[in-house]
Amino acid sequence: MKLRLGLPKGSLQEATFQLFKQAGFELTVRSRSYFPTINDPELEVVLMRAQEIPRYVNDGVLDAGLSGLDWIMENEADVVEVADLIYAKNTSNPIRLVIAVANDSDIKTVADLKGKRIATELVRVTEKYLKSNGVDAYVEYSYGATEVKVPHLVDAIADITETGSSIKANNLRIIATVLQSTTKLHANRNAWKDPWKKEKLQNLSVLLQGALRARSKVGLKMNVPGDKLANILEVLPAMKQPTISQLVQSDWVAVETILEEIQVRDLIPALKRGGAQDIIEYPLSKVIP
Amino acid sequence: MKLRLGLPKGSLQEATFQLFKQAGFELTVRSRSYFPTINDPELEVVLMRAQEIPRYVNDGVLDAGLSGLDWIMENEADVVEVADLIYAKNTSNPIRLVIAVANDSDIKTVADLKGKRIATELVRVTEKYLKSNGVDAYVEYSYGATEVKVPHLVDAIADITETGSSIKANNLRIIATVLQSTTKLHANRNAWKDPWKKEKLQNLSVLLQGALRARSKVGLKMNVPGDKLANILEVLPAMKQPTISQLVQSDWVAVETILEEIQVRDLIPALKRGGAQDIIEYPLSKVIP
Amino acid sequence: MKLRLGLPKGSLQEATFQLFKQAGFELTVRSRSYFPTINDPELEVVLMRAQEIPRYVNDGVLDAGLSGLDWIMENEADVVEVADLIYAKNTSNPIRLVIAVANDSDIKTVADLKGKRIATELVRVTEKYLKSNGVDAYVEYSYGATEVKVPHLVDAIADITETGSSIKANNLRIIATVLQSTTKLHANRNAWKDPWKKEKLQNLSVLLQGALRARSKVGLKMNVPGDKLANILEVLPAMKQPTISQLVQSDWVAVETILEEIQVRDLIPALKRGGAQDIIEYPLSKVIP
Amino acid sequence: MKLRLGLPKGSLQEATFQLFKQAGFELTVRSRSYFPTINDPELEVVLMRAQEIPRYVNDGVLDAGLSGLDWIMENEADVVEVADLIYAKNTSNPIRLVIAVANDSDIKTVADLKGKRIATELVRVTEKYLKSNGVDAYVEYSYGATEVKVPHLVDAIADITETGSSIKANNLRIIATVLQSTTKLHANRNAWKDPWKKEKLQNLSVLLQGALRARSKVGLKMNVPGDKLANILEVLPAMKQPTISQLVQSDWVAVETILEEIQVRDLIPALKRGGAQDIIEYPLSKVIP
Amino acid sequence: MKLRLGLPKGSLQEATFQLFKQAGFELTVRSRSYFPTINDPELEVVLMRAQEIPRYVNDGVLDAGLSGLDWIMENEADVVEVADLIYAKNTSNPIRLVIAVANDSDIKTVADLKGKRIATELVRVTEKYLKSNGVDAYVEYSYGATEVKVPHLVDAIADITETGSSIKANNLRIIATVLQSTTKLHANRNAWKDPWKKEKLQNLSVLLQGALRARSKVGLKMNVPGDKLANILEVLPAMKQPTISQLVQSDWVAVETILEEIQVRDLIPALKRGGAQDIIEYPLSKVIP
Amino acid sequence: MKLRLGLPKGSLQEATFQLFKQAGFELTVRSRSYFPTINDPELEVVLMRAQEIPRYVNDGVLDAGLSGLDWIMENEADVVEVADLIYAKNTSNPIRLVIAVANDSDIKTVADLKGKRIATELVRVTEKYLKSNGVDAYVEYSYGATEVKVPHLVDAIADITETGSSIKANNLRIIATVLQSTTKLHANRNAWKDPWKKEKLQNLSVLLQGALRARSKVGLKMNVPGDKLANILEVLPAMKQPTISQLVQSDWVAVETILEEIQVRDLIPALKRGGAQDIIEYPLSKVIP
Repeated sequence: MKLRLGLPKGSLQEATFQLFKQAGFELTVRSRSYFPTINDPELEVVLMRAQEIPRYVNDGVLDAGLSGLDWIMENEADVVEVADLIYAKNTSNPIRLVIAVANDSDIKTVADLKGKRIATELVRVTEKYLKSNGVDAYVEYSYGATEVKVPHLVDAIADITETGSSIKANNLRIIATVLQSTTKLHANRNAWKDPWKKEKLQNLSVLLQGALRARSKVGLKMNVPGDKLANILEVLPAMKQPTISQLVQSDWVAVETILEEIQVRDLIPALKRGGAQDIIEYPLSKVIP
Repeated sequence: MKLRLGLPKGSLQEATFQLFKQAGFELTVRSRSYFPTINDPELEVVLMRAQEIPRYVNDGVLDAGLSGLDWIMENEADVVEVADLIYAKNTSNPIRLVIAVANDSDIKTVADLKGKRIATELVRVTEKYLKSNGVDAYVEYSYGATEVKVPHLVDAIADITETGSSIKANNLRIIATVLQSTTKLHANRNAWKDPWKKEKLQNLSVLLQGALRARSKVGLKMNVPGDKLANILEVLPAMKQPTISQLVQSDWVAVETILEEIQVRDLIPALKRGGAQDIIEYPLSKVIP
Repeated sequence: MKLRLGLPKGSLQEATFQLFKQAGFELTVRSRSYFPTINDPELEVVLMRAQEIPRYVNDGVLDAGLSGLDWIMENEADVVEVADLIYAKNTSNPIRLVIAVANDSDIKTVADLKGKRIATELVRVTEKYLKSNGVDAYVEYSYGATEVKVPHLVDAIADITETGSSIKANNLRIIATVLQSTTKLHANRNAWKDPWKKEKLQNLSVLLQGALRARSKVGLKMNVPGDKLANILEVLPAMKQPTISQLVQSDWVAVETILEEIQVRDLIPALKRGGAQDIIEYPLSKVIP
Repeated sequence: MKLRLGLPKGSLQEATFQLFKQAGFELTVRSRSYFPTINDPELEVVLMRAQEIPRYVNDGVLDAGLSGLDWIMENEADVVEVADLIYAKNTSNPIRLVIAVANDSDIKTVADLKGKRIATELVRVTEKYLKSNGVDAYVEYSYGATEVKVPHLVDAIADITETGSSIKANNLRIIATVLQSTTKLHANRNAWKDPWKKEKLQNLSVLLQGALRARSKVGLKMNVPGDKLANILEVLPAMKQPTISQLVQSDWVAVETILEEIQVRDLIPALKRGGAQDIIEYPLSKVIP
Repeated sequence: MKLRLGLPKGSLQEATFQLFKQAGFELTVRSRSYFPTINDPELEVVLMRAQEIPRYVNDGVLDAGLSGLDWIMENEADVVEVADLIYAKNTSNPIRLVIAVANDSDIKTVADLKGKRIATELVRVTEKYLKSNGVDAYVEYSYGATEVKVPHLVDAIADITETGSSIKANNLRIIATVLQSTTKLHANRNAWKDPWKKEKLQNLSVLLQGALRARSKVGLKMNVPGDKLANILEVLPAMKQPTISQLVQSDWVAVETILEEIQVRDLIPALKRGGAQDIIEYPLSKVIP
Repeated sequence: MKLRLGLPKGSLQEATFQLFKQAGFELTVRSRSYFPTINDPELEVVLMRAQEIPRYVNDGVLDAGLSGLDWIMENEADVVEVADLIYAKNTSNPIRLVIAVANDSDIKTVADLKGKRIATELVRVTEKYLKSNGVDAYVEYSYGATEVKVPHLVDAIADITETGSSIKANNLRIIATVLQSTTKLHANRNAWKDPWKKEKLQNLSVLLQGALRARSKVGLKMNVPGDKLANILEVLPAMKQPTISQLVQSDWVAVETILEEIQVRDLIPALKRGGAQDIIEYPLSKVIP
């Protein structure tokens, strides 16, 4: 039995392959192929444009796939969300679909879009949003380079942005956020009813999330004299009990914990002050709470 | 007064810029810009996806543009064809929109597509073609990599092909040709009624076609003894009278002509045999008959 | 005293340098040089075509080298095999020397090669193989691109393949496997009799194999309530006793083990079910049993 | 409050970003920008040519910066040295400013430079050095490619070299070493008097040095039968007490230590002989003694 | 006898080599060498930073060189200008040294620079300009990235610009143009007094300028019926008499002329209307009036 | 009927394709294919290692091919030389097979090679040469990087060199030149007896040589007053009569000639002095005397 999984071709492909590798799955694909091999005989992977994956998951051609919430909604796909996976190209922020107009446009609010021409790659999502705001406008499909169409070709655009820098660079002004979107591991409703497929997907979800969690965390170990252990435990983040083991032939203990990498820079000076010695930090591949 | 012209961004862009350069128009564009500068104050150029140019020419946002017949038809654009320009990426053949199925599919003819699922980037053109053949099928929009969707995701595709090699490489079989397409310089109907714009477009057409014509032609010059001129004239292609000039201080004449480069390899041995000497071939930039 | 070591130049070079780096030896080489520096004063390294290394090891010009079994045999080199090292460019499978013919050839078995023309880079190995099968054929040296020579230039080829994909892509059919080959650390017979060189080679072998072993393994740590330790130990692979240490100030134990990365995806759900918490996976650089 | 920090643009930039990342600071910069973002709201980073950083630190435009001792001296910058950071592009050696002449030049010592013409990028440092040696010569600023100016354009050069290989490749001979230089984290004298800035810089120094220290070290763990522990402890480097913990349900102990990667290749055979088993080596991100 | 010529290394190098090639001189240089070979035994070429060439021409180390007027002035080089050569990287416009401040700076005129800090690569030229305007300011040498130093590090910059786009992109405002600069073939005063060197330089100048002139010109040929020759001659640019030759066996003439490429697009329609046929345009390598 | 032609794959491929294009034959090949398409239905082209082409031409598998004389001799191929084609990668010089030893070797002459070990890619040619010089030595096949094998692995090498720079860079000294080699269009003896194939090859030879000849030549045209024609004709190279035509409506003549590009730089000043005006130089594609 196999689980048929759609993964995004293109700009997200390399990041996706790295995430799967860290989760324990080695994907290899020849340059122009869409059918990678994977070192798990229970998985069959197809590479596809992210825009199309939810459609084929919805129709049952695929059991599950990775794609953004934006494209799940544009395809009006009725699927099961298995996991939310934040791993973008540049940052770890969700992306947004925003409506933008020229900096010097008279259009200030969504209501002002009435009767205007709007270019977007996500026609249905944009139309629904406008309708729900009671606005009647002409929404046209854009094949790309949407952000340069204002004001020469259209009055407004609905475009995906991660940091807003492309919006600014094109002298546009955001007037509304239609939705926030992250990558979803999503499944076909019938596949989810199959116990084997459901368990396979849940295990996959644990491994992918364990890998993502490990990216912002590090392991920290140190040696602490027995009489200073209390100090050290106060300094360490309280969320989880650290692992403490008595050292042989001494009254020192070894303290080991897992924490956010970003906490380390403030903790290390405090740990030194508290009496810890031989502090080492080491990288992690997976963290499962 | 300016003529507003849409040129294709992307894979055809460099070839288009080279063609315009040869025709006498220098286009320069910074890496992410869509508004190139051009050394003709009467032209204003916008770069755009070829798919969208006919729509904006039809609507009058642009006066004229370059795009394929396929996209003019997909946009159902009612425009004036000013010139047919054959300059593809690899070859100088027209491209074709073909319907293809898996090599081992039961589908043999267009009639067999009844009730089937067909992926294509040209949904309207494909639907019209099927309808005109009395076939009722489900045509879906494909965001790309169309040729790998058969047979896993769809039953057939309607895809653009230049040499057919990608079709073969994916183990597909062509069952019908929907249309042949070349690049068209096409104009908005109202712009064409404006005498200044019409003349500007006609001059542009002469220069672009003169440049294209020069690509397959070369100039050939040779010296010929007067008494052998008749032999040589018999050998030279008959379509145009060559330029013959009497040489000073001798009874030789200089013969000069323009011909297809591909004829040269057969002509040169014949010319040598006919008595011509000092044959030289030189490159051309424009040829206007 | 120095050990003189030949390493392969070319497609295997980068992978070899990475393996040595992981084993603790930093190699640096200027772009066109064949004499890298290494941070071990007891080693002297020469880069060389893999094809030639066994010949120079056999002759004593080198004390030891890395090359494939195929080239050791082609050179008829009488050397000591110190270690088998599987680290290919793409996969970790051994490569094979296979005899292949055109898909539609009449040649079905090795016996059918009688009197035929065979192109190969490994002339001697191929000739010996044919002889041992009682087949008399003409084997010619191929400078490269061997797989495209069938059927225009030769009747069959004997070519190296890793996955068989190049064989298939050229419409060839494998009729026999001549040998399987992996990279060997091999030594000159006299060098091996020198105790210092032998120990140096054995230590090098331990480090290289320790590095290779670490590539497929990971470290796993988790915290386990004392009363559930038995469950967890049942789940963990039985081959090695995990390291278990009592945690201070609690009745939990820390369990730590080393296992194949590929086992992790099945183990983690089982460990969670068994009561383990705070499971972390971390990468390894060397594993010495 | 913010600490304003100048980091080197150019050949050292990538290495600097990697060092900061390992130290816990993520820097991102768009391709042509000089103002990277950093995930620490207390730091404001400016990218600048290393040559200019000490000048702006000296003047108080920056609170602190990273640059070589050579450029601190050339700028005659009166700054506080916070940390010495050895992380070059290729090697971990300090660089040197040397005076070199043509191999066949009559100039043998610094004294012979009297009245000669010397090209260098470090005019002031070179002039001071010559003056302190009682030599009067003409020192001119070189915009680059200094090493090819001898002997056609100048008599000698004072140039930066890491390995001396470029000096040799240009057939030059070193006659004197003006200074050795490493990268310094250096601070403005007034900024150093500000307690918040001083502590921020000291913490930054601890993290950067912890990251650098980890690059040459590895973690080593092994299991040892209780009765062989003494043997093992003798073999392990004496500088630091290893961490020893009793294993549950056995009389074995786990021994863990941190040591220089370069020691590992000699230690592992000794540890095996001493009775250690299941030796693993793992990578480190920071080491704070 | 040889003429020693300095050519610019770096961004102008390829354009310089192409210009020399078109002028008839083939330069080849190995990747890191500064001493190209040239197919003229009377020339000896050295590659050098453009900034330094005028200094070495002034001192007589070189007989002549190519560098910008800006660097001739910065070096206060007293040299002979042999030819003005306009061949920039992107455009054929001269470059300018401009003084720029932040868009929102209070500095509006050169007079406002009094007491301010100005960064520039051309310290002497800038100081002279300010002095001649009666302004006393602090001018400091900038090692690069000058345009990002305003306003954080300095109050103004004096920087080279070709199109002004980098100035705009950094939100700067130009308040003065210090000088316009083009590339000059310039000679040492003593070399110019040597008749052989002077003639060699003049011939070189003719060839380089002939090559540059050919870049904007094309050859045009056409056949014209004898009775329409007068029409055609009226249309053709009047500056030079076209070459007219009588065709044998007809009353047509062949008309041939050289003109600016940019005139062609207007001329061709006029020539067609005037009765010309078989118009061809061909490229030129040199034009010497 | 088709002529089967082998062309060299690899470093010479691009230069070969350009030469054929200039000769009028357009070759296109997909990245990994060995069977290019060509726009001449009478030719069938196979790409192959230059080393192997003469063997297959000799055996009649190919009708003709392009390869160096060195490889024709190494293969002991008995073929017809149709044309000598000098078009190397860098220069237009023939390449040489030279025997080289270490700079400080005792080997001074070919005689000193007695009993020595020599590495080469051309074993048979080298053995024959040594034999003809009465020297008995051990010649071994080198798979590449031959020039770095001296002195560590062998005593001498026989290697191909174009400029000798690689020999010098490896501190080697040339002691003998075994042969000079240029690229040969060569034919199978039986194919040459077929009149159709022979004529096809001769025509191909004319076109290839016409293209090569045009590379070093240019066309030159100028206008000359009738009374100065004699001066000008004296200056022009005497080998061929220039084409002189009387201009209509004037007493000037137009003079046109073809000459070596390298002559132009000396001629142009002389022509100007002689009274010529409006001198233009234009590029050529083929020159057939």
